[in-house]
Parts: sequence; structure tokens; C-alpha cells
Amino acid sequence: MSNRVQIYDSTLRDGAQAEGISFSLDDKLMIVERLDDLGVHYIEGGWPNPTNPKDLEFFLRARDMDFQNAKVTAFGSTRKASNPPEADAILNTLLQAGTEVVTLFGKSWGHHVTHVLRTTPEENLQLIQDSVAYIRANGREVIYDAEHFFDGYKADAEYAVNTLLAAQKGGAGILVLCDTNGGTLPLELHDIIAHVRERIAIPFGIHTHNDTGVGVANSIIAVEMGATQVQGTFNGYGERCGNANLCSIVPSLELKLGKHCIGPENLQKLMDFSRFLSETANVFHDHRQPYVGESAFAHKGGVHIDAMVKQPATYEHCAPQRVGNERRFLLSEQSGGATIAAKLEHLLPDLDKRHPTVQRLLRQIKQLEHEGYVFEGAEASFEVLARKALGTYHDPFRLIGFRTINRKTAQGTEVEAIVKIEVEGRVYHTVAEGDGPVNALDAALRQALETVYPALKKVHLTDYKVRVFSGHDGTAARVRVLIESSDGKRAWNTVGVSENIIEASWTALVDSFSYKLLKDGIIAAEKADRPKAEKALA
Amino acid sequence: MSNRVQIYDSTLRDGAQAEGISFSLDDKLMIVERLDDLGVHYIEGGWPNPTNPKDLEFFLRARDMDFQNAKVTAFGSTRKASNPPEADAILNTLLQAGTEVVTLFGKSWGHHVTHVLRTTPEENLQLIQDSVAYIRANGREVIYDAEHFFDGYKADAEYAVNTLLAAQKGGAGILVLCDTNGGTLPLELHDIIAHVRERIAIPFGIHTHNDTGVGVANSIIAVEMGATQVQGTFNGYGERCGNANLCSIVPSLELKLGKHCIGPENLQKLMDFSRFLSETANVFHDHRQPYVGESAFAHKGGVHIDAMVKQPATYEHCAPQRVGNERRFLLSEQSGGATIAAKLEHLLPDLDKRHPTVQRLLRQIKQLEHEGYVFEGAEASFEVLARKALGTYHDPFRLIGFRTINRKTAQGTEVEAIVKIEVEGRVYHTVAEGDGPVNALDAALRQALETVYPALKKVHLTDYKVRVFSGHDGTAARVRVLIESSDGKRAWNTVGVSENIIEASWTALVDSFSYKLLKDGIIAAEKADRPKAEKALA
Repeated sequence: MSNRVQIYDSTLRDGAQAEGISFSLDDKLMIVERLDDLGVHYIEGGWPNPTNPKDLEFFLRARDMDFQNAKVTAFGSTRKASNPPEADAILNTLLQAGTEVVTLFGKSWGHHVTHVLRTTPEENLQLIQDSVAYIRANGREVIYDAEHFFDGYKADAEYAVNTLLAAQKGGAGILVLCDTNGGTLPLELHDIIAHVRERIAIPFGIHTHNDTGVGVANSIIAVEMGATQVQGTFNGYGERCGNANLCSIVPSLELKLGKHCIGPENLQKLMDFSRFLSETANVFHDHRQPYVGESAFAHKGGVHIDAMVKQPATYEHCAPQRVGNERRFLLSEQSGGATIAAKLEHLLPDLDKRHPTVQRLLRQIKQLEHEGYVFEGAEASFEVLARKALGTYHDPFRLIGFRTINRKTAQGTEVEAIVKIEVEGRVYHTVAEGDGPVNALDAALRQALETVYPALKKVHLTDYKVRVFSGHDGTAARVRVLIESSDGKRAWNTVGVSENIIEASWTALVDSFSYKLLKDGIIAAEKADRPKAEKALA
Repeated sequence: MSNRVQIYDSTLRDGAQAEGISFSLDDKLMIVERLDDLGVHYIEGGWPNPTNPKDLEFFLRARDMDFQNAKVTAFGSTRKASNPPEADAILNTLLQAGTEVVTLFGKSWGHHVTHVLRTTPEENLQLIQDSVAYIRANGREVIYDAEHFFDGYKADAEYAVNTLLAAQKGGAGILVLCDTNGGTLPLELHDIIAHVRERIAIPFGIHTHNDTGVGVANSIIAVEMGATQVQGTFNGYGERCGNANLCSIVPSLELKLGKHCIGPENLQKLMDFSRFLSETANVFHDHRQPYVGESAFAHKGGVHIDAMVKQPATYEHCAPQRVGNERRFLLSEQSGGATIAAKLEHLLPDLDKRHPTVQRLLRQIKQLEHEGYVFEGAEASFEVLARKALGTYHDPFRLIGFRTINRKTAQGTEVEAIVKIEVEGRVYHTVAEGDGPVNALDAALRQALETVYPALKKVHLTDYKVRVFSGHDGTAARVRVLIESSDGKRAWNTVGVSENIIEASWTALVDSFSYKLLKDGIIAAEKADRPKAEKALA
């Protein structure tokens, strides 16, 4: 059995069917580029629609791109029963997309043939075979997706297999067994594949959905049974519960089953890619996601952390670096001094977890967490806090006061922020407008600070998240603001909590600026910290 | 083989290890009550810690509760090598918790015995056996959790099986095979269980984690191999990538494998319970979750929706009502008139999808979605919009203007909102303070509206979510506010989008109030709508 497994991504089509996700043409082109860079073999570009020129535009643009690894495929159905292949608009639009590869899907389930196609089982076999043959005759590679294959098999095994044989006769390069409704359980799938693989003469692939939470398992089992292509989506985006998650499948195939999919080097880009994709899809990055979630190698329980320090393999099934992830020790109610000491390692190696300053910092963190802060996702705020405790930090400015005014009338909206701060004895009083109160506040504060600290000009906010964490009181509930900032070289996160969203944003904003000044050695030199901190701890 | 499978929930212990989750004592008691009501057999209450009286408090309180279905278990490790059982603090604290059932975990993996326990393999067998025997001798039922069983088996099969036999000899009632690191793939797990079940004389259970995305599949396979207990957590909360998700496992066992776990009636409470649990854990409810996610039976693609209307089984692996969920048709770029018509069914049955008003509404929705609105999660805003298009709505007030002022000084923060509106020819000019600008705005608007529409007094905001959906411009990015409101009888969601968070909140707030007035027949009588709408459509 060959060691190679082809990865076929359907993010642009199946992924775009997910609730809350839609991609612009630019998004699509950006994703395609990154998928190619990741070493994926096939990228399903979409279903070129005869009535929608926008879809064809994508294929037109993709044709001009220079791919290192991937082939873009056009996806579409077998012909209509009423048309001969050469007169069928769907097949001809597929050819018009100009891809080297076409993915044709056909019906495997009598139920669908009768109720959706409204044709006869025999006619369906015929149109599978000659649709495939027509695309092949036009010089394209054909991937045949047997839609609802497993449901069809359960209803009538012989007929389902015959649809595969029709595609094989038509000249398909590979037969992909689809669990379109996602309702097939692992051992059932195993037994069906065991039978089907004896009946076909060409390679087969697998395409599963996650409606029973076993999409990943089903894909892995299929590969162990001989499948040479896995169709899915990275991050598992897709209609309903999503498609089989390639971010989970690929590492298990590579690291646990010794298969070659995208290769060990590309594998290290996986977490980055996964994050890029959530950002482009504009949905939360699932932090619990296997391998590539921020929590995937995050340890919280005190017992676990002690053991981890002794022996990483004890509580980790694979080394996080292999997928571009990293081990994290979480600060939390359950954390002890050991976690704090581990996190301060870069500042003060060998800091004793029982040191009174460490214990004081721990109490302070627990108190803040009680108020709603989370430092798990805001390492920069933790750093600012820790340095305050260690005495290696001084405030870059003193706030005298700020004010935001938001006025809406029939003529429109006007937003203003006024900031008054003191830096090194001098008072700065600035005013700025903005799209919203936080934006205006950011602008006014910068106006004052950038004259003293020009390094802040490079800082921009890359994400701004708001969470209400006791939803029971409506708008009077407490809000937590998480800000992600970047200076083009590195990114960091800060947190603020208040019942007032403007106040919470202010806290996170000030921490972000402080962190930048800390890291640049402007308000506390990175290297020079050690002696000072040691003195503070003495 | 018996048809019954016991469900063992570990939300209070393993679940509380999840990043971002922690439960108060009250939360725990509330969860226990609901788990019992759901028909779960065992509820792991936590690890009663000799040094933490707060943990014991939970067991004390739970003892006074009246359970219909569940038994609460106390969880803890086998004794220390240095202590005889009767002098071991861990074992004695477990007894002190006063539960009928104790879950003891022991080491199955030589690696752990040497590096974590720091004892010998032989000593480990001894302490498993006599720890179990000691708890049994004190009249408790013992569930034995073989921690890292599969990793242990892979390292030394014979030794791993011997640890099970030691627990069996000690008098355990059931041996639970744990994939603690979550790194075991389905077929591997299948083969290990096939061997192990021949070697033991008492029932076995399964406890898996989701680090490779196969936690659910592994649990289902184990049941098919004869496991009579499944340990996991509802919503899959747990350290790292989480535990096996009982919300996915239980319905598949009941509906697809014909097992009896919580029974068909309790199964219908599953989605409600899942939502309750996310709310209590204060994390987002995963809308993609199998069976119980809001998207699990949500259909978006136009082709799918047409087919669904023809034959629901075509694209659904199970009937959503069986788990308390429902089918949804999503409004989106891909939606057509058919979706709009389906959503307006309750107002205007048999509305033709090609009607010009439907088409105009569709264009309007697509334009708003382009600006960042989502109506998928804001059905009340859709209703308000649709009724405007149908002419069965009039605005409850006219806005003249509003203003919010947020002032921070060394003395504290002051927030004020001023609202000027006109209702039925009369101008209301009100001012209110608040915790934050949106809260103040809500209060000022209510001051004006409640005198005219007292029904609004019952409306309160139950959730307030903010999403920045193009993170690229930082605080200048556009924000989407989703508000969930309730009047005690029903809940509804509204949406607002703007670059300004206050403006977006205002839009969602006004829609929420309008929806309440609509539903109460105050600004448009529910029943009287039909003729008017028909006229508008004529």
C-alpha cells in the first residue's frame, strides 16, 4: 500500500456553506494561495454556475496563479437526464472553468434518484457514466464524488456499488465515498468499505461530515482501509456540523500512521494556517481544536503541571511544535506558584515558587480573575502586572482624566474623546474624533503619547473582542475586552474588565501600549531587569 | 449483551479543567440537579481534597439532595506507596465525602509508575488492589478508572492488563479504560479492547479525550465492543481539547445503536441542557455541535433547501426533535425567495417566492448582510424588517437625537445618556445614568417609552454580544452587536451593525423593543396582519 494520501480541501465550497461564513473573491484567492503553500493537493474552487458570472471570475483569476503543489478543481453535478452531455449547461460550465481537474458528483441513493433527480435508477447510472466520459474526453482528470454513498449502500448495496462502477467505466481517476449526511458510525463505515474496496478497480477516497461527531474518525479509518484521498475542510467548516476537519486528520495520518500527506515541514505551518483561516472566515478560532487549538496543549490542573515539568510525554500525545503549536501552562484558580514561576522564567530563571513575591502575585491574579479578568489569553497584561509586582516597571504616563461624547441626531453621529495625561511633569490635553468612542479614545491618547514615545506609531490594534460574562443582567453586566495588538513584528494580547465597556477598553489599551514600551526597553530595559528584580525579591 | 449503557458525567471535575471554565459551588449544585433530571447515572462531584474544605462542602450539600436517577461519585487516586490504606489521607477523604460510589484512578503505564508515582510496578499493583479493597470494605461501590490505559497497553500490554486484574481482585464493580492523553486512534482502540475484554471477568467502561478529534468515535466503538459505561462530559468540556462529548455520544447510542442510556423522553431535553450548561460555564454554545448545536440542522445551500422541502430525510441523518433541536433555513447570500417565503410562513402562508415584495426584501437583506448584518442569529430583527417591507409595521417612536457622555477622572467614572424622541406627537426628553453608555442609553430610552408602552417593563436583556468582524482596522473596524432579550415568557435576538458600538447597540435595542410591541399586538396586531399584508402584496 502506498504511503501517500492526497489532501483535498473543500473550504471554498463546503466551507462556505457553514452558518456565519461567506468569502469574498479576494478571501478566496488568499486562501487558495495559502493552501498551496501548505502543500495541499487539490483545492475545490467552487461550483461554477452558468447563471453566476462571479463564480467563473474566481476560476479565471486562479488560472493566472502559480501553484507549487495544488491543483484547483471545479465542482459540479452529473448532467440533467434531459440533456445529452455536450448540450448540458452544467457540464459545459465546468469545462469553461478551465481547470485541469473536475470533481463530478452523482447520486448513489435510490431515494435521491427518485425524489431529487426525478429519474430512474438505470438512467442515473447512464448519466454518471457519460458525464464522466464527456469531461474525460475533453482532456480533464475526473474525481468522482459518490454523494450519499453510505446511505445509498445501506438502502441498496448493489445499486450503490453500481453507481461507482458506472463512474469507473466513464473513466474517473478516483471514486470518493461520501457520507453526505454525516450519520454513519465508524464500525459501520469500516464494514461497508471492506466490502466496497473488493468491488472496484481504481483508487478510492473518503469525504465525511461531522453530524454525529465522528467525521475525523471515519476519515482516518478509511485511510487505514486503503483510501488514498481525504476530502474535508481545514477547521472543519461546512454546512450544519461541518466537514471532516483536515486540521485533525492530517497530523494523525502523518504522525501516528506514518502517511505522507503534506510532509513534516508543512505540518509545522498548520496552526498558523488554521488561525489565518478563522480570521479570513471571520469566526472565532476554536481554541479546543485538536492539534491546532490554543488549548490543545494547555495544562491547567496543578497535578498535571507538576507531572508535565517532570516528563512532557506524561500528558501530551504528541510534541506541540510538530504542528506549530506550543505547550502552555494556564494561570487560573488551580494554578500555583509553580505556574507563575514557569511564566516568569524568561525574566528570572530559577525563581522559587514559594517566594513571597510570587505568592503575592498569585493572590493578586486570583483576585483579578475573581473580578472577571482572564490572563490565559492576555499574556501581555500578565507581564505588565508581574513587572509591577517585581518593581521593574514604571507607568509611561499618569491619567488626569478622559471624556468621550457620542451624539446622534437626524444629521448623523459625532464622536469625540478628550484625554488629559501627564508625562514626565508635562500635561498633555488632547482631543480626537473617531468612528466610535474607543476609536476616538485611542486616537486622543496616541496624540499625546506618540510625541514622547514615537515607537507607539507602529502599534496597531489587530483585534478587539468584547465578552459579557454575566449575561444575566443585560447591558449592566460586566464586560471583558480583549485587545490584540501588533507592531508588525510581534503580536500581543491585553485585557480589561469593567461594567463600562469604555473603561474596560481603556485598561486593555493602556496595557497594550505599556507592553510595547516594556518590550522595546523604553520604560524598563529587558536585559537590565534581572538585578533590579532580584533586588526587589531579596 | 445488555441493552443498557450507563452515562457517567465528569463535567464538575474534568470539565472544570477546561481553559476558561470554572464553577462556583452554586453552579455545581445547579448542574447536578439538571444532570439528574436528564437521567444520567453517575455524576462525578470532584476530587475531595484533604487540604481544601470547599470541595467537601459540595459533597455535604449534595448529600441533602433528592436524586431521581443519578448517584454522585467522589473521585480520587489510589493510596500513596508509603501509607497503609487506613492511614492514607486521600482514601479517607474520599470516604468522608460520604458518597455511595467512589471512583478510584490508578496507574496503568510503567512510565507513570516510575516517573510520577516514583514506585515499582509490583508495588503499584498492590496499592491498586488494596486501595479498592479498602473502599469496598467501607461499604462503597468502586468504579476503577485505569488512567492512561491505552498508552500503558501500547508500552506493556501484560502489565496494563495486570493493573486491571488487581482492581478486579480488590473488588471493583467496573473497570474503566481511559485514553487520558487522547492519542489513541479508533482501530487501534478497537483492537486493544478486543484483546482486553477476553482477560477480565467484570464489566468495563470507556473514558476518552478528544486530542486527536476521535473521542466520540472511540466511545461509540467501545460500546459496540461491549462497554457498559461511558464517561465523558456534556458539551465535551475538559482539559486541552476536551473529553468525549456526551451530547454527541448519547443520541448516537440511543438512536442509531438501539441502546438505552437516558431514554427517548430525556433525550428530547438534550439541546436545552447543552445550552444551560454553556450558559453556566459562561462560554459560547458551540453552534456546530452535533445534534445539539444551533447549526446542526440548519440548511443554507439553495439546492439543499429545495430538496429538504421535498424530502427532509434527504439531508438529515436524524429528526431534530428527537434531541430537542429544530430544523432551520438560513438567510444568506445563497438564500433565495424560497427561504424568505418559508420564514414568512406564519404571517402569510403560501406566499409565492417570486412575488416582487419577496424579491425586494431579499435584495434588502443581501445588502444589509453585505454591510455586516447577520439575520441567521437575529430572527426578531428579520421579523421587524420583513414587516416593514410588508407594510404591517409602524415605528413605536421617532428619534430626534441621543447623546452619551462618559467621563473618567481621578474621582471615578460618570456615565450619562440623554434621549429625545417623539411618540404620537409628544416629545419626550429624558436623561439617565448607567454602568456604561449602552446601559445608560437603555435606561433613558425606557424612561421615555415605558410611560406609553408599559409592556416594555417586562423586557430585560439576557445577553449582549459584540463581535468585531473586520479585525484588520482595530477599533475602527465595524462591530456587530447581538442582543438577546426576554420578557420572561419568550426570548428573541436582534442585531445592529456600525463602526460605532453605541450606534450598533442602539439599533439592536430599538429592534428588540419593537419586536416585543409587535408580538404583543401593540404596534401591529398579529392576527389582523394577514389582510393588510395581502393588500400590500397585491
